[in-house]
Amino acid sequence: MDYTFSKGVADLAPSAIREILKFTSAPGVISFAAGNPAPEAFPAEDVARITADIMRECPVEALQYSITEGHPSLREGLTRYMKEKHGVGRNTDALIITSGAQQVMNLTTAALCDPGDVVICECPSFIGSLNAFRAGGVRLAGVPMEEDGMNLNALEDALKTEKRARFIYTIPNFQNPTGITMSLEKRKALYALAKRYGVMILEDNPYGEIRFEGEDVPAIKSLDEDGMVIYAGSFSKVLSPGLRVGYAIAPAPVCAKLIVCKQTQDVHTTILSQMIADRFMRECDFEAHLRRIREIYRHKAGLMMGLMDRFAAPKMTYHRVQGGLFLWCTLPAGVDMPAFCQTAVQNKVALVPGNAFLMEESDPCQSFRVNYSTPTDQQLEQGMEILGELIAKL
Amino acid sequence: MDYTFSKGVADLAPSAIREILKFTSAPGVISFAAGNPAPEAFPAEDVARITADIMRECPVEALQYSITEGHPSLREGLTRYMKEKHGVGRNTDALIITSGAQQVMNLTTAALCDPGDVVICECPSFIGSLNAFRAGGVRLAGVPMEEDGMNLNALEDALKTEKRARFIYTIPNFQNPTGITMSLEKRKALYALAKRYGVMILEDNPYGEIRFEGEDVPAIKSLDEDGMVIYAGSFSKVLSPGLRVGYAIAPAPVCAKLIVCKQTQDVHTTILSQMIADRFMRECDFEAHLRRIREIYRHKAGLMMGLMDRFAAPKMTYHRVQGGLFLWCTLPAGVDMPAFCQTAVQNKVALVPGNAFLMEESDPCQSFRVNYSTPTDQQLEQGMEILGELIAKL
Repeated sequence: MDYTFSKGVADLAPSAIREILKFTSAPGVISFAAGNPAPEAFPAEDVARITADIMRECPVEALQYSITEGHPSLREGLTRYMKEKHGVGRNTDALIITSGAQQVMNLTTAALCDPGDVVICECPSFIGSLNAFRAGGVRLAGVPMEEDGMNLNALEDALKTEKRARFIYTIPNFQNPTGITMSLEKRKALYALAKRYGVMILEDNPYGEIRFEGEDVPAIKSLDEDGMVIYAGSFSKVLSPGLRVGYAIAPAPVCAKLIVCKQTQDVHTTILSQMIADRFMRECDFEAHLRRIREIYRHKAGLMMGLMDRFAAPKMTYHRVQGGLFLWCTLPAGVDMPAFCQTAVQNKVALVPGNAFLMEESDPCQSFRVNYSTPTDQQLEQGMEILGELIAKL
Repeated sequence: MDYTFSKGVADLAPSAIREILKFTSAPGVISFAAGNPAPEAFPAEDVARITADIMRECPVEALQYSITEGHPSLREGLTRYMKEKHGVGRNTDALIITSGAQQVMNLTTAALCDPGDVVICECPSFIGSLNAFRAGGVRLAGVPMEEDGMNLNALEDALKTEKRARFIYTIPNFQNPTGITMSLEKRKALYALAKRYGVMILEDNPYGEIRFEGEDVPAIKSLDEDGMVIYAGSFSKVLSPGLRVGYAIAPAPVCAKLIVCKQTQDVHTTILSQMIADRFMRECDFEAHLRRIREIYRHKAGLMMGLMDRFAAPKMTYHRVQGGLFLWCTLPAGVDMPAFCQTAVQNKVALVPGNAFLMEESDPCQSFRVNYSTPTDQQLEQGMEILGELIAKL
């Protein structure tokens, strides 16, 4: 039989990059290409104890169907935590538990966008989110990134010209892939622009809690007097990605539609995962845990930046980070980035060419993304030494 | 802010029924409206032991990101099980683990359908699947059900006239809501028709393993010489729905697209859930477990049908079942079904009016759906006594 596929899906083919990433898991390859939390950041003993408690105390609840909007106790706890700690969420908002924050991108697209609509994105931006938008048949309009977030003139141009723009997508803290954090001034200006043009904001904040230097910048959602912002949060970087627990805090009418969409996708998020996340926040010292994992990432980021200074400067430049999992590294003009990354993986170091994060993968890009959270310290050192040699030869 | 939603989602509003179902969880209400497995069917002690083993032996694997297509060991075990036990799956097929079988409906729609395309469905059919199709902007073409499955003349008419038909959706075993099992003859004829018109089949089989009487009928997928069938399976009814583990077995090029779509939805299914399902199949006596839960459902179905004969005959008729979780009950012509179900819930018995399962909820329907797996034996008896009184008054 000849198979034909939907338009949104037929176009989803980041081929050159898939070819490179295929070799990422080959034996002996040091992967700087992943986005996994450091394994030592998992509170495995706490999770084991909590899981045993759940299976002893309420096995039927853990194994039975549950409600789409999420485990009530987790929703209540998260709502309170986000309001008290981050000023996120008002009486006009509601909270839905999702199967990872990735599902928030998908649900928002399903709820707000018809094929041919437009999503305004930071360029570059996280490929997983871009693909969620693309799968909905949406066109992406890219806004260039500056040191302190989106170029606001370019954003306003996009809002003026893109009549079918449905929302602005931003990762304001330690952005994936650039590591950039948007300034408070720009957050306010972005919110004002979105309000003026009547376009919603999807604020994706998986890395905000992993700040190991500097001061927190308030969430855009904390400024949301007008019900314009859908906030996406996640337990993936602060507890465990394998459990697949994320959430959205959104204006109640929007949240109601996210719930309707979620019901058609997976009915509800794994209830055992939700109960684990809930009890972890309630029974363990969550702040102490965050302090512990921030130390892990402070160490790894510092080590990696030091190695970059030692092995790859001055030819390779990078954006210094204060949190998150990624470094954005730039090579001199004229270097063919996919070809460089191909050479790197042949030399046993896997990188993601920056092109993967562009609106159009075929556009040129002088940068690649490095992840420092997954490899061991020794792998960071070995990998950067190899990269340094390849860069010296350029 | 005024919110506008996508076309597919704006239309998803089964309002009258939602209003009835709201009262389902009110105190004192006996719910025949759910679709939950019997709590006593959960192998809670096995799951507790397996979960403890996993968290002791391989916590990092259980908590870390995993691959979209699913936990390799579970994929391998399921592929073998389905081939050996049910003749489902060939060398040209591939298997993807999903977040419940519900996700298969969503992924299939995302992969195959553009808005305005058509899905041919049994009428009535499972509302969760119908809504997954609707959310994709798809139009539903209903084919009336007979005692042995779809009316094949009506199916052929639909295939002739619906030029944008993308797949035929069927629940061949103990269909939700009717309890009907499609005969082998009709399965073969349906497959031949689909082949002749070049339209794929989505075979949804959540209840097949819960046959407590009669002989298994081969899956349509087992006839699939031509790569026309996407088979959806689930652990929800045979292990636990809260874990959210389902799967699809589909021609490899189609499965590749399901994987791409899943990556944009939730990256992967909760890895701990997958590992629990995998070890349960490998370490426990799965066949003995199935025999045990079939006994539970045989008892409950038998009890419920007896109560119906005692309290509601002859005014109410129903389709006798050999498996599954549901009974489809019909009242005399002229009874307003939503109004009857409203009265029932006011009298503390929740039912789902059959209208919920039609292509158009506003169409008339003389039936309601009863679930016998969730209530206790005592609740079955109390509820049917109340229903009997209401029916006597009609």
